[in-house]
Amino acid sequence: MAENFTSRAKDYSQWYNEIVEKAELAEHSEVRGCMVIKPYGFAIWEKIRDTLDKMFKDTGHSNAYFPLFIPKSYLNKEAAHVEGFAKECAVITHYRLKKSPDGNGLIVDPEAKLDEELIVRPTSETIIWNTYRKWIQSYRDLPLLINQWANVVRWEMRTRLFLRTSEFLWQEGHTAHATKEEAVEETEKMLGVYSDFAEKFMAMPVLRGTKTENERFAGAIDTYCIEALMQDGKALQAGTSHFLGQNFAKAFDVQFVTKENKSEFVWATSWGVSTRLIGALIMSHSDDKGLVLPPKLAPVQTVIIPIYKNEEQLEKISEKVQQIKKLLEKKGISVKYDDRTTHKPGWKFNEYEFKGVPVRIAIGPRDLENNTLEIARRDLLTKEITSQENIDTKIENLLTDIQSSLFNKAIKFRQENTHQTDSFVEFKELIENKGGFIYAHWDGTKETEEKIKEETKATIRCIPLNIVQENGHCIYSGKPSKQRVVFAKAY
Amino acid sequence: MAENFTSRAKDYSQWYNEIVEKAELAEHSEVRGCMVIKPYGFAIWEKIRDTLDKMFKDTGHSNAYFPLFIPKSYLNKEAAHVEGFAKECAVITHYRLKKSPDGNGLIVDPEAKLDEELIVRPTSETIIWNTYRKWIQSYRDLPLLINQWANVVRWEMRTRLFLRTSEFLWQEGHTAHATKEEAVEETEKMLGVYSDFAEKFMAMPVLRGTKTENERFAGAIDTYCIEALMQDGKALQAGTSHFLGQNFAKAFDVQFVTKENKSEFVWATSWGVSTRLIGALIMSHSDDKGLVLPPKLAPVQTVIIPIYKNEEQLEKISEKVQQIKKLLEKKGISVKYDDRTTHKPGWKFNEYEFKGVPVRIAIGPRDLENNTLEIARRDLLTKEITSQENIDTKIENLLTDIQSSLFNKAIKFRQENTHQTDSFVEFKELIENKGGFIYAHWDGTKETEEKIKEETKATIRCIPLNIVQENGHCIYSGKPSKQRVVFAKAY
Repeated sequence: MAENFTSRAKDYSQWYNEIVEKAELAEHSEVRGCMVIKPYGFAIWEKIRDTLDKMFKDTGHSNAYFPLFIPKSYLNKEAAHVEGFAKECAVITHYRLKKSPDGNGLIVDPEAKLDEELIVRPTSETIIWNTYRKWIQSYRDLPLLINQWANVVRWEMRTRLFLRTSEFLWQEGHTAHATKEEAVEETEKMLGVYSDFAEKFMAMPVLRGTKTENERFAGAIDTYCIEALMQDGKALQAGTSHFLGQNFAKAFDVQFVTKENKSEFVWATSWGVSTRLIGALIMSHSDDKGLVLPPKLAPVQTVIIPIYKNEEQLEKISEKVQQIKKLLEKKGISVKYDDRTTHKPGWKFNEYEFKGVPVRIAIGPRDLENNTLEIARRDLLTKEITSQENIDTKIENLLTDIQSSLFNKAIKFRQENTHQTDSFVEFKELIENKGGFIYAHWDGTKETEEKIKEETKATIRCIPLNIVQENGHCIYSGKPSKQRVVFAKAY
Repeated sequence: MAENFTSRAKDYSQWYNEIVEKAELAEHSEVRGCMVIKPYGFAIWEKIRDTLDKMFKDTGHSNAYFPLFIPKSYLNKEAAHVEGFAKECAVITHYRLKKSPDGNGLIVDPEAKLDEELIVRPTSETIIWNTYRKWIQSYRDLPLLINQWANVVRWEMRTRLFLRTSEFLWQEGHTAHATKEEAVEETEKMLGVYSDFAEKFMAMPVLRGTKTENERFAGAIDTYCIEALMQDGKALQAGTSHFLGQNFAKAFDVQFVTKENKSEFVWATSWGVSTRLIGALIMSHSDDKGLVLPPKLAPVQTVIIPIYKNEEQLEKISEKVQQIKKLLEKKGISVKYDDRTTHKPGWKFNEYEFKGVPVRIAIGPRDLENNTLEIARRDLLTKEITSQENIDTKIENLLTDIQSSLFNKAIKFRQENTHQTDSFVEFKELIENKGGFIYAHWDGTKETEEKIKEETKATIRCIPLNIVQENGHCIYSGKPSKQRVVFAKAY
């Protein structure tokens, strides 16, 4: 499997595509821009979803479900929002097909034309705020803390599996608050949830910051984001949390009566992460042998492979493996025993190595005699023979070690690929030759940001939170600046 | 809350609508035919989904995700399938909006017309079997056991929350097998999963059977179903499992190489349940005081309400409640402590009664003194004072008792509303005045089935599995028949 596998150095983009394909994570469908998420890829998404869902619920949020379709006119109600989404949406104009008069195939029935076209949700602020108008009357109805797991569609001409597809899966939180302060606090809290998830579960370090006006969500006052660095030196926006001010409340006339009996517009946030995270996960840890998964998100954490020459040996091994499997499962470790007789051990080794299973245990007749096992860890590609004593604790510790080791490796990579410069010449050189995150001064204007993008393809990934204030001069315009921002080329 | 609540006897349909609305389960959106599932309703769906998902995984299935959109031409490939779905689908014709030339609003950009229209999936057999063609080459790739949780759209003119909406949530299993026997076995196995779920979790007894040709899924050789009886004497189809034969394999050319190195078409099944189950759940158990939920699917199984006159009392009660809550949660019981000071106990009693929380605990200052509690059960509307001793075991047993008591009550109701007749006069009378399930002989023809439907509105709900063979005469035509089938009016 790894034989015809392209290395990162040779062609990073091809390397990524091959991992997605050969590890059976996803594939392009014949429907333009839409992907099929295959069982193994979907199992990773289930881990991501279930973990985040628990974090959302632990912070007081409930799930709900809103319609897939949005009347065209809703989009138009928030001026910035329509700019952002009208150009890339799937439009439903009819509700019926009929037999073609020539008897060949189906045609759209012209008599089933909708009075108002519907669009497939690209995001749900409009339909949700139109609903919140009925749900929110008084301060007693606030805060309203709701999340939705859903599919959304944004028409894309150039797609890449997980990273950019026309249809993708995501969650979108939509909250309503009585005060600006509470809404800002919620926006920041959810950014915190995302960065905790990225670092503790995905083992992927992230920068936390806010977006510049250019990169802000269409309709937001402020967009907070987490930004991760991929192995090719490009940044990937892994999650966003928006402070929407009263924009949507005003667009959809959502007012509430305060304790003081005054009528006020509601304050809003929205926040989301998507199946894009799977792309980020792949590119954070994988290597030239295939996918590498952090144990906390691996659908199979430990695979056990029997080494045998005959039925009798296999039977004895299987007996022992069932005992070990039970011990591990008691510790909450997900274990797969691959006793298929249709494939050789070597083939299986390759398969699970390529699929990024964190720990592989091999067990043969000699191991039965000596009470030993061979344990291999995917991240370092090392293996050792060990006693079967306390195997459950050993594997448990090993998984913990792999999880933190992957995070530390990623932190180190980011450190090595983070630069600081005060010269635009050096900036261009860094972007061109090294990539990575570049901390530089910027004069705060849209114009400069756009010129830098034009000349270097680098964008401002974020204005980092909690960064030291420091007087300096914009690398491009030379105008005064009070803090550095983070530039990078991005996915 | 229950004050202005319509009784079942007065207007069953209104009673249902009010439960859905006042228990905050769902509401109509402004998008025609699409519902908003509110947090409490969605929490019930999460329970249904998580329970079924585990049952699917325990029977060897994996989840995956396929595109929302289906090219128009795919629908046309399976003759019966297109008949069933072309007349009620949302059609996407364009992928962009633009500003109207007059500056007011948005119009569909005529330059962004799709070469081939896409429809929003009404069900995914076509797109999935088009994908399986690439996934299945050899007998080694079989069986392929995949499920998908998704939203689907079937354009509906007359909608009812949960029971019939244009968009709904569901799961659809799509499996591929090497032999007819295996596929039939899978179809029956999944019907078994559904009926186990309905009876053990929903506490809703179901008949298992097969559909007549008239009522079969568009594209199936055989449709198995579970049918439940609602309190108004109408039947509700709660789940279906289809044996698709080789129809879709032939339509999408999915062949595999057998062990004997021959090329053969693959055998298929598909099976699904939807948010409709929530409608069935409501109508199975609820009463004139509102929603009644079986403990196994109740988002909150036990609510605790403090009775107090002042802050000091509330504090002492809360301390005790925290201990009790911990004990119950240790047993896996979901507990809500409603210590809101904005609402009176009586208001809270009504609220949770209406929302169907199975057990209510009330605790006041005298209970603290006497080491007692008041426990009320929602299904019987009884309450008793009991000692706090072993409260965890008591509540656990009570929940088990409520679960089985609801099932037994529903079984009894079904027995009382199941009739058998050999006379069409009596049949008409039964359907007209009593409703319920009617076992009667039928001659096996489409014509008779349709005539009975025309004259009585009753349809054949199913040909029950494992029914005794018994010679008789069709109640309508008098022609010979070998077994009874089940008639009812249906949702």
